[in-house]
Amino acid sequence: SVNPDLASERQTASFCVEKLTALLDGGTEQTRIRRAVVEAIESDPVFSRENQYFQTQNERYEAAVKKAVHLQKKMHEMGWTENGPEYKYIYRALSGDVAFLLHRVFMRSISVLGSDKQIAKWIPLATQHKLIGSYAQTELGHGTYLQGLETTAVFDAATQEFILNTPKISAMKWWPGDMGRSATHTVVFAQLYIHGKCYGIHPFIVQIRSLQDHSLCPGITAGDIGPKMNFEHIDNGYLLLKNVRIPKENMLSKFCEVRPDGTYVRQGSQQINYFTMTTVRISLISDEVLTPLMKACTIAIRYSAVRRQSKLKPGEQEAKILDYQTQQEKLLPQLAAAYAFHFVNDYLQELFNRGYGEIQRKNFDMLPELHALSSGFKAVITQHCTAGVEICLRACGGHGYSLLSGLPSLYTKIIASCIYEGENTILLLQTARFLIKCFMAANAGQPVPPSVTYLAAVKHGKCPAKNKLDFLSPDIYTEAYQHVAVRLTSSTAAKLQDLIQSGVKKHDAWNQCTVQLVQAAKAHCHYIAVKNFAETVEKLETKAGIQKIMKHLCDLFALHGIFSNTGAFLHDGYISAAQMDMVTASYLDLLAVIRKDAVPLVDAFDFTDKSLNSALGSYDGQVYQRLYEWAQKSPTNQMSPAYERYLKPLLHNTLSKL
Amino acid sequence: SVNPDLASERQTASFCVEKLTALLDGGTEQTRIRRAVVEAIESDPVFSRENQYFQTQNERYEAAVKKAVHLQKKMHEMGWTENGPEYKYIYRALSGDVAFLLHRVFMRSISVLGSDKQIAKWIPLATQHKLIGSYAQTELGHGTYLQGLETTAVFDAATQEFILNTPKISAMKWWPGDMGRSATHTVVFAQLYIHGKCYGIHPFIVQIRSLQDHSLCPGITAGDIGPKMNFEHIDNGYLLLKNVRIPKENMLSKFCEVRPDGTYVRQGSQQINYFTMTTVRISLISDEVLTPLMKACTIAIRYSAVRRQSKLKPGEQEAKILDYQTQQEKLLPQLAAAYAFHFVNDYLQELFNRGYGEIQRKNFDMLPELHALSSGFKAVITQHCTAGVEICLRACGGHGYSLLSGLPSLYTKIIASCIYEGENTILLLQTARFLIKCFMAANAGQPVPPSVTYLAAVKHGKCPAKNKLDFLSPDIYTEAYQHVAVRLTSSTAAKLQDLIQSGVKKHDAWNQCTVQLVQAAKAHCHYIAVKNFAETVEKLETKAGIQKIMKHLCDLFALHGIFSNTGAFLHDGYISAAQMDMVTASYLDLLAVIRKDAVPLVDAFDFTDKSLNSALGSYDGQVYQRLYEWAQKSPTNQMSPAYERYLKPLLHNTLSKL
Repeated sequence: SVNPDLASERQTASFCVEKLTALLDGGTEQTRIRRAVVEAIESDPVFSRENQYFQTQNERYEAAVKKAVHLQKKMHEMGWTENGPEYKYIYRALSGDVAFLLHRVFMRSISVLGSDKQIAKWIPLATQHKLIGSYAQTELGHGTYLQGLETTAVFDAATQEFILNTPKISAMKWWPGDMGRSATHTVVFAQLYIHGKCYGIHPFIVQIRSLQDHSLCPGITAGDIGPKMNFEHIDNGYLLLKNVRIPKENMLSKFCEVRPDGTYVRQGSQQINYFTMTTVRISLISDEVLTPLMKACTIAIRYSAVRRQSKLKPGEQEAKILDYQTQQEKLLPQLAAAYAFHFVNDYLQELFNRGYGEIQRKNFDMLPELHALSSGFKAVITQHCTAGVEICLRACGGHGYSLLSGLPSLYTKIIASCIYEGENTILLLQTARFLIKCFMAANAGQPVPPSVTYLAAVKHGKCPAKNKLDFLSPDIYTEAYQHVAVRLTSSTAAKLQDLIQSGVKKHDAWNQCTVQLVQAAKAHCHYIAVKNFAETVEKLETKAGIQKIMKHLCDLFALHGIFSNTGAFLHDGYISAAQMDMVTASYLDLLAVIRKDAVPLVDAFDFTDKSLNSALGSYDGQVYQRLYEWAQKSPTNQMSPAYERYLKPLLHNTLSKL
Repeated sequence: SVNPDLASERQTASFCVEKLTALLDGGTEQTRIRRAVVEAIESDPVFSRENQYFQTQNERYEAAVKKAVHLQKKMHEMGWTENGPEYKYIYRALSGDVAFLLHRVFMRSISVLGSDKQIAKWIPLATQHKLIGSYAQTELGHGTYLQGLETTAVFDAATQEFILNTPKISAMKWWPGDMGRSATHTVVFAQLYIHGKCYGIHPFIVQIRSLQDHSLCPGITAGDIGPKMNFEHIDNGYLLLKNVRIPKENMLSKFCEVRPDGTYVRQGSQQINYFTMTTVRISLISDEVLTPLMKACTIAIRYSAVRRQSKLKPGEQEAKILDYQTQQEKLLPQLAAAYAFHFVNDYLQELFNRGYGEIQRKNFDMLPELHALSSGFKAVITQHCTAGVEICLRACGGHGYSLLSGLPSLYTKIIASCIYEGENTILLLQTARFLIKCFMAANAGQPVPPSVTYLAAVKHGKCPAKNKLDFLSPDIYTEAYQHVAVRLTSSTAAKLQDLIQSGVKKHDAWNQCTVQLVQAAKAHCHYIAVKNFAETVEKLETKAGIQKIMKHLCDLFALHGIFSNTGAFLHDGYISAAQMDMVTASYLDLLAVIRKDAVPLVDAFDFTDKSLNSALGSYDGQVYQRLYEWAQKSPTNQMSPAYERYLKPLLHNTLSKL
């Protein structure tokens, strides 16, 4: 039975939840397929996450391997293929809790970087799991800056081999997933040396464990890097190489080749590689970043409709915490952000599909823009969503802090997304570099990519809003965001030029501007997110109340951004103090409006109880019952040896006679 | 041997580290005592935290109990007493990783709330550990709002007993520390009923487990609430009471008594109770909040001096990440905040000692101010420090995410401080209520407590700064903070009055202002923190470079606050756009100045390697060596059954023949 406090929230929905779900999925057929996958996965006991919060790192790893192996069978049984429409829902349905994800990266890197001959040899072996692959790039002392990697691969013309070494402890490969305990092979990125000359970073296939008994191969030292904040199911590993010899054919050679005599030949373009890195950043947004935020919103908002605390009106019963303005102000902007970034993700996916088409036609013109957008949005979205999950966790008070709420595991997982696939600050600076370049070009009258044409049109006007309702006009707020993005970019470009003209060296000048460059890059992404949300709402059907509620969320997303960052808009007087008070008033009004639909808006994300795995967030809102049931299953409710060893002697005073 | 990259940072310290340590400790004698305690604890293998990051919740609990029992012996052996000068350093030296903390709260509550007779009976039993106590207040459905607690204690005049019940699942006691597995007794807070009439919340001593065999007493259901984000060493528990009868003498009766015939008598003042709650909030700031931030700063800053990444100048070696402006902008404001809040803590301690003296003299005038300050600063400091630890964690990239860095455990522990001892938003609203009240009083010409007299002096001037150096003047920035605090309080007071005058009911009007009330409360605390830091610096000796570096940190703390919240200062034009650019310039300049002393500034916190328990933060900066050594000890580097069960059959293709 559904908790009446939650049931009442659903009776007054202003829109059709099922229609919104279909919109998020991209159509009713997609919804049907997704639900079928979820149903098949969740009804299979091997994929159960029931006791996950009680498991040790070793148990998590073992379960993940078991699931990965079982998944092969399941896919065969269900007729799912890697190219089928079901495929993209499998990982989400498993909540990522499965091994061998790096095996897939291993395969992708061979497909992209390997010669036809290499692909023909390795891909079938990998597909049939006659080996387990990993991807060894990051080193103990080297991450984002790939040129700094220290692992070496020296060509030995006499034997037609490469000799691989990690010459220093900082060169040790560190973090690669699936490598700590599972992988038999890995792609090692190393500095290529031929006849004493360094040719930079290249990828090499290296066997690290025996296919017979899994023992480490000669010259290999490898193991697991130990406990992390999450990802206990993944065996992130370390790898030391000592004079490991591999045949010449193991260098992935689609783009570069070493001839038998040691001649180095570069072939084709490397640009497509960067495009691959770029697409990875985009592809992680949906499953790794948006899904956790949507889950956290679902848990925290359902809980806030059920939890009662203090009295809002004297004489009445304690109020739902969702009725407090401060609680609305914590949760509803996160909900709006989840929708905003969902639509940004659609926008980026479409842009990347278009970009991929162009690249197929050998047109690389879109690459800089795609790189800038993928870097900037990866950083902004991961940062925003991580903060959002943390807010949801804290908004649930003590119960949010219990693992059984599901929130701690969402938080400790999503925070990793701020670090992997490019550290966020470095990525934002890449975006900023693009912005500065385009700003200069635009001001010199040169053409710039579509997403930054606005930089050319620096307007010095003022915001025309006359009352608080004007701030519910997308034109008004989108232009305000645009104005701020232009201002921050142009003022930082000016500072940069001033410094250089005053004699500061270029790299020093850049470093002295980086804090402000990061702000400019964020403002650019924020502007595009707001604009895209507004445009998406504009195009929606007006039926079933969907457009109306999405418009409210779009307004909230935009006004929350202004309210949380008033200085950026007030700075040059584009928005006046009086107008800012209107923003605040409209923003606070919106909270009360959206609060009415808060539960239906998270219901539309359509998470099952099993996928939420939360004692606070279940569809029926039976929070306390579930917390109690789950806690009773905890291993900490078994007898502890601490009683016999320490407590009993203490209480019986045999120990305390000091 | 010390990593040369770290050693070089220490050679150029602008001040005497040992002198700064003494300043933080409150004198060289205190430093000596603290170090002696740390040495005694850390040299004792029972207190070792060496394998902590590899332990399960059960193992953590067992170790904490073992340490707690051993600590009794150790104190005896060392001649440490609860009233001795060493006592306050013990918990810090143990890094809190010890059981029976609630036993102390049990004792304190009896001492404060119990009659002389009760104290005479229970305190010796507790002191001698003939029982283990806990403190059962929070319920599954009830936290901050104590009046809402549902547990009942019904007086039975026939037997002269109370009958205790948790009538609904939401009434179950939930979270009390030491109760899940250890405690034999607890203080239960319950609604007192006599002859059908409710007299509100009262405390009762209830035995929950047998002193002989630790089995649960009749009518008691109790256990552990399971896994949490941290605090695995504590057995937070649940407790169901079903017709549990306790003798009348077990109601703690210093302030209220039930006569044999059921007559209820209230005695003395309850105000002292609130004072106790207030002091708890202050007392947790030092060990639970500041120490974790100081540790996180130590780890992240030492690591940033050792980690090299990318090139700052072409042709040179990769740069220390501490040399990047963006990295400085992440870490150095956290360092400044650690110092700022250390001095706030001193200020609050002194204020509370004074308050306690007044209360002893039956003068309760200071209570409202003390309550407002303790609530506000508890919220502001826990929030700020939690965010600071998270920034430190993320600033260390992938290695920060490894438990071996020590940062995840600091984060998952400190975040709890935002929730316990009063949820932060609720606490800030308590402070805001005080501010509004005082603002009204001050404007009506009535006297107000010292910390809020500034509210009476609303000035409508402008910031007089003429250039960026002016913003290094404490008068300039302290006044700016004061101006903002007054503006936010007065504008919210005005909004509140407007709403009420326009017919909105008082409680609704209050709720509609809470987002802004929270801002006002934060601004008030921030102003006091800045003012206090500036006044502290003013009073410091000018010798040994201490005052100079503290002045820089004070400036950084103040300017960071303005830079991160520009809108609040720009809103009414108190600081103009041109002045804000000066703030930014001065702020960024300061980063480069303080960066030079960053390592000595964290060295002054004087944490031993054992207390940091971090592979990234050790004094010698041998980061990579230590990560590798520690990882090798991880239980995940033992053979997993997953190989024989799943990997071998897969690789040998017995499974993959689908």
